[in-house]
Amino acid sequence: MKKIKKTPFKHLSYIKNCTFGPLNEPIAKVKPGEVIEVETWDCFANVVKPTQTLKDVLEKGLPLYDNPITGQIYIEGAKPGDTLVVEVIDITLPDMGVTAVMPGFGGLEGWLQKSSPLTKFSEIKNGKVIYTLKDGRKIEIPINPFIGTIGVSPAFEGTSTIIPASHGGNMDVADVCPGNKLYLPVAVDGALLGLGDVHAVQGDGEICGTAVEIPSVVTLKIDLIKNKRIDWPRIVSPDEIMTVCSSKPLEDAVRLASLEMIRWLEEEYGFERYDAYMFLSVASRLRVAQIVDPLFTVVVKLPKKLLPRKGEA
Amino acid sequence: MKKIKKTPFKHLSYIKNCTFGPLNEPIAKVKPGEVIEVETWDCFANVVKPTQTLKDVLEKGLPLYDNPITGQIYIEGAKPGDTLVVEVIDITLPDMGVTAVMPGFGGLEGWLQKSSPLTKFSEIKNGKVIYTLKDGRKIEIPINPFIGTIGVSPAFEGTSTIIPASHGGNMDVADVCPGNKLYLPVAVDGALLGLGDVHAVQGDGEICGTAVEIPSVVTLKIDLIKNKRIDWPRIVSPDEIMTVCSSKPLEDAVRLASLEMIRWLEEEYGFERYDAYMFLSVASRLRVAQIVDPLFTVVVKLPKKLLPRKGEA
Amino acid sequence: MKKIKKTPFKHLSYIKNCTFGPLNEPIAKVKPGEVIEVETWDCFANVVKPTQTLKDVLEKGLPLYDNPITGQIYIEGAKPGDTLVVEVIDITLPDMGVTAVMPGFGGLEGWLQKSSPLTKFSEIKNGKVIYTLKDGRKIEIPINPFIGTIGVSPAFEGTSTIIPASHGGNMDVADVCPGNKLYLPVAVDGALLGLGDVHAVQGDGEICGTAVEIPSVVTLKIDLIKNKRIDWPRIVSPDEIMTVCSSKPLEDAVRLASLEMIRWLEEEYGFERYDAYMFLSVASRLRVAQIVDPLFTVVVKLPKKLLPRKGEA
Amino acid sequence: MKKIKKTPFKHLSYIKNCTFGPLNEPIAKVKPGEVIEVETWDCFANVVKPTQTLKDVLEKGLPLYDNPITGQIYIEGAKPGDTLVVEVIDITLPDMGVTAVMPGFGGLEGWLQKSSPLTKFSEIKNGKVIYTLKDGRKIEIPINPFIGTIGVSPAFEGTSTIIPASHGGNMDVADVCPGNKLYLPVAVDGALLGLGDVHAVQGDGEICGTAVEIPSVVTLKIDLIKNKRIDWPRIVSPDEIMTVCSSKPLEDAVRLASLEMIRWLEEEYGFERYDAYMFLSVASRLRVAQIVDPLFTVVVKLPKKLLPRKGEA
Repeated sequence: MKKIKKTPFKHLSYIKNCTFGPLNEPIAKVKPGEVIEVETWDCFANVVKPTQTLKDVLEKGLPLYDNPITGQIYIEGAKPGDTLVVEVIDITLPDMGVTAVMPGFGGLEGWLQKSSPLTKFSEIKNGKVIYTLKDGRKIEIPINPFIGTIGVSPAFEGTSTIIPASHGGNMDVADVCPGNKLYLPVAVDGALLGLGDVHAVQGDGEICGTAVEIPSVVTLKIDLIKNKRIDWPRIVSPDEIMTVCSSKPLEDAVRLASLEMIRWLEEEYGFERYDAYMFLSVASRLRVAQIVDPLFTVVVKLPKKLLPRKGEA
Repeated sequence: MKKIKKTPFKHLSYIKNCTFGPLNEPIAKVKPGEVIEVETWDCFANVVKPTQTLKDVLEKGLPLYDNPITGQIYIEGAKPGDTLVVEVIDITLPDMGVTAVMPGFGGLEGWLQKSSPLTKFSEIKNGKVIYTLKDGRKIEIPINPFIGTIGVSPAFEGTSTIIPASHGGNMDVADVCPGNKLYLPVAVDGALLGLGDVHAVQGDGEICGTAVEIPSVVTLKIDLIKNKRIDWPRIVSPDEIMTVCSSKPLEDAVRLASLEMIRWLEEEYGFERYDAYMFLSVASRLRVAQIVDPLFTVVVKLPKKLLPRKGEA
Repeated sequence: MKKIKKTPFKHLSYIKNCTFGPLNEPIAKVKPGEVIEVETWDCFANVVKPTQTLKDVLEKGLPLYDNPITGQIYIEGAKPGDTLVVEVIDITLPDMGVTAVMPGFGGLEGWLQKSSPLTKFSEIKNGKVIYTLKDGRKIEIPINPFIGTIGVSPAFEGTSTIIPASHGGNMDVADVCPGNKLYLPVAVDGALLGLGDVHAVQGDGEICGTAVEIPSVVTLKIDLIKNKRIDWPRIVSPDEIMTVCSSKPLEDAVRLASLEMIRWLEEEYGFERYDAYMFLSVASRLRVAQIVDPLFTVVVKLPKKLLPRKGEA
Repeated sequence: MKKIKKTPFKHLSYIKNCTFGPLNEPIAKVKPGEVIEVETWDCFANVVKPTQTLKDVLEKGLPLYDNPITGQIYIEGAKPGDTLVVEVIDITLPDMGVTAVMPGFGGLEGWLQKSSPLTKFSEIKNGKVIYTLKDGRKIEIPINPFIGTIGVSPAFEGTSTIIPASHGGNMDVADVCPGNKLYLPVAVDGALLGLGDVHAVQGDGEICGTAVEIPSVVTLKIDLIKNKRIDWPRIVSPDEIMTVCSSKPLEDAVRLASLEMIRWLEEEYGFERYDAYMFLSVASRLRVAQIVDPLFTVVVKLPKKLLPRKGEA
């Protein structure tokens, strides 16, 4: 199995590590069908730790790399107009994760009283995150590990890894987890896949701006569907089909993801357009992935068991 | 058990039936502790039916009353600064419900090609809504009946029953269902409760603008918490606590509902503020109730089992 | 000339003074063609003054009435579907005005550091507002007095006087000034006109939430156009025609006001629709009236000299 | 005088011509103090013309390059943390300009009935744009030529030339015109200036998505302020100072530009922060540049004559 290491920041590789773009040199090549193991940074490039809190980092003026990815990975044979398939097989967990509040960032920035940066470390063990309150009480939250940032290169822009958009990116969707397949639209030769920002568990909306942030080693199976064009990322789990769209305001993300699902119902399930529209209105489920990045991300879901195939009656 | 009939529209009672307001005369009085049965209109005032589609109604120029309520009901002893408790005990189901697309309304208005009004009738039986596609295929969707519009009078405004806000109103929250308790902030003497717009089942977001719309008879237990002030509706189910806020854009509804939940965690569970903020970011669930009314509604939820009481360690 | 006094707040007339609504009793009757003199409150109901700052008012817990109007005034013969014409003839100026910053209000709330309430009094003399900086420097700003809040009753809702909408209300449009005519859509019998919240001068956007706020006596000529239906307020000055729309986000207000102007160009100037659309894109002027009230207000303007009448070539 | 030609599209130079980015090779080098003449594309890369309308281009499937720039131009000595000064000296006008409506683009997309693409050509002569209505009437609009798209490279992203942001870009601000100076924040060595998209005249908001679009030759004087950091573009005219910010929704652009102006008043005019905030609220003017690009652009303006220098009393 091919093992892909994260690129160190030693040589000012800010552009390479912190953008998805067509002009960045690939760090590895992978064939469709291959299973790969990718080592990932956490969203703070692993610089925040119990011996060095976020406040320490900011006060020392240390560089705070935003949301670095490992990549970009060239997928052989991928061309614009194809669809890249990424099956998540495994996500390793360290024994500790970090949650932080940064001034100038987060869903309630300007709504709660201002604060200096806060850092909370939570032990991870036995499938639980141990969230400890200031008064010492401990809350055990079941883990749900997933890849927060994963995407391909846009056609011609070099986009910050902070941004989620049609190329994927910083979507923070908990459904990009072991057992599920993510579909991404290929826009340049080789697709140029990158990923990072793994979360041990996250609340819907990721309201304070971070989840339980962890470095990880992720196992993926890469595949390719030739000549199938999708406009936005899609996910398929054993039980559900999902469309993932990012926009601002949040309602536009809901609209886009609903429209994508309507198209999917038309194309693969033979729904008439307005039948599909009304069906979403009575049967769909929505996940708000995050409202803290430059665009906000929404998932529209339908249970497979409610979806008759064409011709079924 | 007191039975409260809906008010007919014969005498141009548009203001009474289609606003929540302090100047509307109450139609009934109820004591805290009473169980009542309330007959409700569907969102189209029961004028759309298989023999008269929405298109027929609009083409004939018949009056289309928007989202009428039954009310307002005066709760004895309720004063501004109290909290009204409405326990939903039962919701009756007719054998048919209606879903419709109206030009000029709905989440994808202007995004999908324009259409004339569409009406779809779905049979309801054995706990399922039978959703029938144009090609005859049938999809059985499990019912989840709830009260779409329920609220009290604002302090001095007379607000359309189309609008959801801090007084409740057209929230379309599927958690206002049998087994759950809804808490509403009292703003005028007698609270002046009203309700209607019951849904047999609804998708998150109610994207086309309607759910499976039904008239109903709803059984409620009314109670009062004296001298407890809340700012927005809350819901408690056997397993979860929930805050319900409405705003526009949708992210502001998420922010408001998150802030309400943080306050709740501070007041009743002894969380420090930023502990609560970060806790939501790793553990909360969000429901987008609707993005089709003048303000959009969001529910923030936490499982009771993750919430230690003050003093527990 | 009929003189209309403002209603005192002695008898808890909050609903009457602080809503536009169909259930409020009129305080006067006026015939079309009449010239009237209306005494108006400032936006703080005249309670903030050099001897009692906004901070004093809030700390003493005095009632702070929001944006009261004088009204509602019944216009004889006005029916739904008519257009009310209000010509502004004169606005009197006191010798002092007040500008204030209130916590929880204003365009930069949550963007600037929090502050306790601030009150600044500015002398008004010789057609200038004397704005005094903390270090004593004085800036002379030419006055431009106008009526901040003016509107009619909605059809069935009782709307707070804080809100601008299709009925007029708290629009804060500097073009509602002497020499100009304001057109309002009549929605109930008698129209039920109300006004207040005069400003001596205001910046575009009214970014801190207040202008130079003054009580005043306003002279108006009231007229009526029978059977002419407009959807939003319009203004005509000697040189320009203007549409006024309020919405949120601000771009929707721009879109609505542009659409209204396109309709006007179609109906009265014989423009083909897309000719009108492209014409706005090369020739219109926009005023952002305010971005601090619950909906935001925009004015789209065209110079009369660019507008050929139908048949002119 | 150095003459800089636009780069042809022959060699698939989409990335070079249609992004502002740090990885694009410069096409010329200029010294601070130099006057240069830059040849610019119109927003359609000059492919739309009377013999080939926008509809023809789309139907033929010809490539439609979006908003190309001429650049990027390396300014010697420019370093991150400096401010680039661009004085606009002259803008040449062709004898014809084009205005167009594109499906899927424009401020009223989805609000007006759908249409196929529309193209209108307007003669330009004697300082007037001759706007011709479908019925033959002609309207003479005085020209006001300006540079629609002008900016520098972001620090590490490669941004589409369609986007306006803190690096400048597609701002469509009519104040970037002869006689005025534009200030841009330098983010990479050499600044990497690019420009294009000149307009003969434009309405506020550019509601249909285009103005009177022209190719041009633009004369600029380039200068540099070392070690002066600004966060957003600024403009100084003979009479006014202006801040230019782009965001979405439009009110956030207003907020950002107001905040920038408050900082300017603090730093250079000695205003206390809240004095500045209230001063804007009574004296500023706003221009809405455009609401049709991915972010919306606003200009906040203050007249120089109202601004006392520090120490003046």
